[in-house]
Amino acid sequence: MPVGTRATVKTLSPRDLLEADAGIILANAYHLYFRPGADVVAAMGGLHKFMGWDRPILTDSGGFQVFSLGGEGGTAKVTADGVSFKSHYDGSSHFFTPESAIRLQEELGADIIMCFDECVPAGAERGYLEESVRRTADWAARCHAAHTREDQLLMGIVQGGIDLELRRESVSRTLELDFGGYAIGGLSVGEERPATLETMQFTAALLPRERPRYFMGLGDPAGIVDAIAAGIDMFDCVLPTREARNARAYTSAGRLNLRNAVHTRDDSPLDPECGCYCCRTFSRAYLRHLLTQKEILGLHLLSLHNVTFLLDLARRARKAILEGRFSEFRAVAPDTN
Amino acid sequence: MPVGTRATVKTLSPRDLLEADAGIILANAYHLYFRPGADVVAAMGGLHKFMGWDRPILTDSGGFQVFSLGGEGGTAKVTADGVSFKSHYDGSSHFFTPESAIRLQEELGADIIMCFDECVPAGAERGYLEESVRRTADWAARCHAAHTREDQLLMGIVQGGIDLELRRESVSRTLELDFGGYAIGGLSVGEERPATLETMQFTAALLPRERPRYFMGLGDPAGIVDAIAAGIDMFDCVLPTREARNARAYTSAGRLNLRNAVHTRDDSPLDPECGCYCCRTFSRAYLRHLLTQKEILGLHLLSLHNVTFLLDLARRARKAILEGRFSEFRAVAPDTN
Repeated sequence: MPVGTRATVKTLSPRDLLEADAGIILANAYHLYFRPGADVVAAMGGLHKFMGWDRPILTDSGGFQVFSLGGEGGTAKVTADGVSFKSHYDGSSHFFTPESAIRLQEELGADIIMCFDECVPAGAERGYLEESVRRTADWAARCHAAHTREDQLLMGIVQGGIDLELRRESVSRTLELDFGGYAIGGLSVGEERPATLETMQFTAALLPRERPRYFMGLGDPAGIVDAIAAGIDMFDCVLPTREARNARAYTSAGRLNLRNAVHTRDDSPLDPECGCYCCRTFSRAYLRHLLTQKEILGLHLLSLHNVTFLLDLARRARKAILEGRFSEFRAVAPDTN
Repeated sequence: MPVGTRATVKTLSPRDLLEADAGIILANAYHLYFRPGADVVAAMGGLHKFMGWDRPILTDSGGFQVFSLGGEGGTAKVTADGVSFKSHYDGSSHFFTPESAIRLQEELGADIIMCFDECVPAGAERGYLEESVRRTADWAARCHAAHTREDQLLMGIVQGGIDLELRRESVSRTLELDFGGYAIGGLSVGEERPATLETMQFTAALLPRERPRYFMGLGDPAGIVDAIAAGIDMFDCVLPTREARNARAYTSAGRLNLRNAVHTRDDSPLDPECGCYCCRTFSRAYLRHLLTQKEILGLHLLSLHNVTFLLDLARRARKAILEGRFSEFRAVAPDTN
């Protein structure tokens, strides 16, 4: 899922995303709550109509942002009822509960919405992590009860840091509620990659295969292939557009920094194996010129390519699975981490 | 002509420009001389191939920028031979002559190239203006002699500020050289609009109707209609994309600032009379959201609309002329100045 935090996948229009054949995109409830406000989005006919995208949308509940953005300077305060925090937009005080997070997402109108969970940073004490896992499970039950729109699928979120015992408990508590899909959260908050992978593999194996399994906050090519191997069906990727804005591109021959002088007179396409508009039309020399001159077209073209590259990677993985040759696919998948 | 100063019309891809049906775009020799360098553009197959645009391109000679950018702090020094100036990119010293400006433009490879002229700011003394008109005419002769590529049309530039007598002299000297087209320069440098219009009308009437007449540096809707009425065939417009980056849009009902709060819940299209992708797809409310949140998609969509709006305006003017009803068209043309 390309990430459209503020109801726009940065630098890309809906028709660009259709061209890349994105099947679903993500938007963020926290950001849309503040700007332009869920009431505005609802008055404009909901998120799909507002942003001109009629394929599926998933909204993140805002849990992650409440803690990562509202938590700066320790302003996020957790109680059993919910979280009070200060807006990172203007410092104003706000209080989110599981019920308000569901109401917010129902108002925004995405197809898939997420439970409101507590995100604990890497390295939290076992005692706090345990308390947080139980609170997240209690909140999941309240989200489940608060959810009224039958046209929206609600996903539960498994927490527990890299503690496998807590992950097992979190899975068990979340499965009891019988959600339409299950997400693995709290693993893009600063852990080492091996611990992340181990926890992801362990947790994914405990979740039902017949429901979508979503690993939150993962978007590098190598990580996606690892996650698919672990049975993950969905990811959200802020990386392809963020990397593009830093002039970095994924290619089938590895990652490139397009600002490098080596590309000054390089008339080859960004990735000869990619069929996107950027790769079909422009040379690396032109892209380097645009990016060194801070021209917006450069950010757009690299974003279009990176998003296409990751969607193609996922499509190729899916095809390999269907054709029973995923192991071979994985062995030659790009290592662009 | 939408302006692609650095070989990119800001925020728009070549296919966006094709969709807006731009018949020709402008690029700037001064900027491309410094970044990425004419040698790089030539090595990449010339400007068309470099930027992925196979319709006509016109390059400005750099005369205007040498004086307006290199002239800051008084670094531009004019002699009969040429101009020495400091790069506004890195302060390095450079010397442009009529011959080097033609060589530069031949290397870049546009379809239409411009003589190297001296641009004098508004309010210059009569004596200096007179000297400058004569120097520009001498330089035009040198440009004409230096020009070797038969596949490029070279245009002469008439100068003379708002002094009609000097304009007449400049026209006369320039016509002697028999250029493929004629431009009116030096009128976007700070004069009052009535004096600009009067000088434009006076000068255009002295130029041959069977050659393209190009008014340099004009791009507002009202000005374009005035210029067309004066017999002008070509304009270059940095305004539509610059205005877009300031959240301002031309519409058939006048100019709008999309950051204004009045658009917060406005679900109408930017311009109901416009058929561009922006107007077909998005509400003013969404555009306002994008622009207040500094999302690049907002700059792109407004640029696409503004460029389409001006090209449509020119197309409608052309149609009105062909159908013998330009006066009626002019009477109802948008006053969005």
